Amino acid sequence: MNPEPTVDDLAALTPPSAAQRERWAAGDRAARPARLARLRERMVEARVDAYFGVRSENSRYLTGFALGDGEDRVAGNSGQFLVLPDEVALLADSRYTEQAGDEAPDARIVPVYHDLAERWPDLVRGCRRVAVEGAHVSRLTWDRLAGAVPDVELVPVEGWVEAQRATKEPSEVERIAAACAVADAALARLVPAIQVGMTEAQVALDLEWGMRTHGADALAFDVAVLAGPQAALPHGSPGARRIQAGQVLLFDFGAQVAGYRSDMTRTLFVGEPSSADLALYRLVAAAQQAAIDFVAQAAAAGRRPVAREADTAARRVIEAAGHGGHFGHGLGHGIGLATHESPSLGRQAASDAPLPGPTVFSVEPGVYLEGRTGVRIEDLVLFDPDDHRLERLTRFPREITIIAA
Amino acid sequence: MNPEPTVDDLAALTPPSAAQRERWAAGDRAARPARLARLRERMVEARVDAYFGVRSENSRYLTGFALGDGEDRVAGNSGQFLVLPDEVALLADSRYTEQAGDEAPDARIVPVYHDLAERWPDLVRGCRRVAVEGAHVSRLTWDRLAGAVPDVELVPVEGWVEAQRATKEPSEVERIAAACAVADAALARLVPAIQVGMTEAQVALDLEWGMRTHGADALAFDVAVLAGPQAALPHGSPGARRIQAGQVLLFDFGAQVAGYRSDMTRTLFVGEPSSADLALYRLVAAAQQAAIDFVAQAAAAGRRPVAREADTAARRVIEAAGHGGHFGHGLGHGIGLATHESPSLGRQAASDAPLPGPTVFSVEPGVYLEGRTGVRIEDLVLFDPDDHRLERLTRFPREITIIAA
Repeated sequence: MNPEPTVDDLAALTPPSAAQRERWAAGDRAARPARLARLRERMVEARVDAYFGVRSENSRYLTGFALGDGEDRVAGNSGQFLVLPDEVALLADSRYTEQAGDEAPDARIVPVYHDLAERWPDLVRGCRRVAVEGAHVSRLTWDRLAGAVPDVELVPVEGWVEAQRATKEPSEVERIAAACAVADAALARLVPAIQVGMTEAQVALDLEWGMRTHGADALAFDVAVLAGPQAALPHGSPGARRIQAGQVLLFDFGAQVAGYRSDMTRTLFVGEPSSADLALYRLVAAAQQAAIDFVAQAAAAGRRPVAREADTAARRVIEAAGHGGHFGHGLGHGIGLATHESPSLGRQAASDAPLPGPTVFSVEPGVYLEGRTGVRIEDLVLFDPDDHRLERLTRFPREITIIAA
Repeated sequence: MNPEPTVDDLAALTPPSAAQRERWAAGDRAARPARLARLRERMVEARVDAYFGVRSENSRYLTGFALGDGEDRVAGNSGQFLVLPDEVALLADSRYTEQAGDEAPDARIVPVYHDLAERWPDLVRGCRRVAVEGAHVSRLTWDRLAGAVPDVELVPVEGWVEAQRATKEPSEVERIAAACAVADAALARLVPAIQVGMTEAQVALDLEWGMRTHGADALAFDVAVLAGPQAALPHGSPGARRIQAGQVLLFDFGAQVAGYRSDMTRTLFVGEPSSADLALYRLVAAAQQAAIDFVAQAAAAGRRPVAREADTAARRVIEAAGHGGHFGHGLGHGIGLATHESPSLGRQAASDAPLPGPTVFSVEPGVYLEGRTGVRIEDLVLFDPDDHRLERLTRFPREITIIAA
């Protein structure tokens, strides 16, 4: 592991250069044939002749075509794609034709505008069975496609591309780390400017601005800044509440860099912390360290533990302190082109699988005391058992940090 | 119509007050029983015992529970809802329970966490037929729900709530107008600060900032700022291109205020306009005026024209100038809780229906000369035939506006 940087070190980080971004784009283009080859292997195994995808992250991963967050709501069928044995067809209406040609130079661009069902017979000509992203294609679209060519069997599939995406290529890890650095730097620059009396919403906007003017292409998700009792809401939104001395101030935020995302949480203290808040902080930090130690040991041994065991390692610490009932969410989640993706590190059945590797996920235990206070600490880590490596990609200190009041 | 405000008038507009926002929230709560009653009438007509909705705008409209843009991707089933004859059940996992209770005080909050299929039998107990938002529920979820209670028939329905939402209540129109004012004011304040040599992305960020620090709760969609030949892309993104004298500068942007959205486009000139650009601008302005005149006359006569006829009124002007092939999209779209909603004012079959009223939609003809230049002018209008009224909600001048070069 690299030596721990100080807040001043982080504040001085510079955003990724244009040259770096060009290398990432070139890396993506070079990686896409292998990504498609893996998908086609799975298509052969499942005896399907094509894969129809609608999820924008999957489209970006396989074709290069990128839609902004929420843009899929107004893009119609643009960005949806059909992987065939020897080509990829990318749908784009006239608004997106030029972008599709630029970003997906290896795909055949198919014009479509509210008429996918009419074009479907041509698209699937020669196919007998077509895998369809059943968790993302609506029931109505499904019926229209099935009705357009009754002879072609539509096969609902889930997680084929997502499972691939859980294992990260080196240039994907670089971009997640770059997104972490943008977020680290923004918080490091913001801390000295925070003052008692500012509202949560003002601080959140300043933090967003800090990221977006220093390397972030977009936010990974809306910034959460929660003061005092609000920090007990694991998913609260910043409001008009003013920051007061003697309270915690919880930040949950992330950046996007070249399509990849970061996600971090820090709970800072405004003025002198109460002893109860301090004790809670130390508990959550110990729980987080227990989970990190657990996956670090597995990585060092070249072993892939069951995802749920990492959750257990943290949860046991919190339960031992009598706060088991106040940690109501899972330990973490994978991250990449989406903010939440595989692997899941919760308590659910989905977490019974061994961790993939190399992969990146969040480690984010929290304790929430309703109406009083809350503490969460969240870092992204790279888990790479083949390289016997566990690395924190979030570098902001986890030591108790006090904002002058 | 009110007298046309100047750019200085617009720049001085103040954001909606907290008291105004409270009145809107109260208005929503008061309006929800009638919205639900209309939906239940439709349920009775279609002989269904319940309506299962997943679309976040519909949830907000019927229950009050609000998710931010893109938040539905990480919210799981939170915000999904079931309208029964005598109650509304709103799903929320532990992250959203408090918010759901606050924002949807009239709904029963049902805890759910990755286990909707397990809870489905309880939810639909006593039902025989359940209407489901078939255009938004995935094929996979559909199959799980159908499998959970095979005796309950799921009926795919589309547009039931969306059709209601197309007709606007007075307090909805007020919020759209407030969102228009936030956008008008932000552009009015920005214009004097634009300089040759700035990049499109810088200008876009400044415009976003201007809205979000002066009344906007969020953007309606990512700001587009497109210089010169880029303006020929009806859906381009701002980039590192620098603004040059002698080019057009196209702005397409909108704000969100208390859930409701605005959407406007202005094409300004940097320095002395070329005569070709000026001619194009006058053509598009004439086409827009022709469409506005058409709907204004209909409104004055208390008549609801077929939506497509408004498109025709503008298109005819552009076709007469030989640019019919360069206006590749429809005239406009409804707007409200979503940026694009009913009614559609395009050339498609969907536009064969008469306009609803009162309703709000965009009027946005454009002419795009690939690789050279583009002009689009977009205003939102309130169409209220019962009140014999057509009102521009976008107030920014449409006169030729030159940015000093």
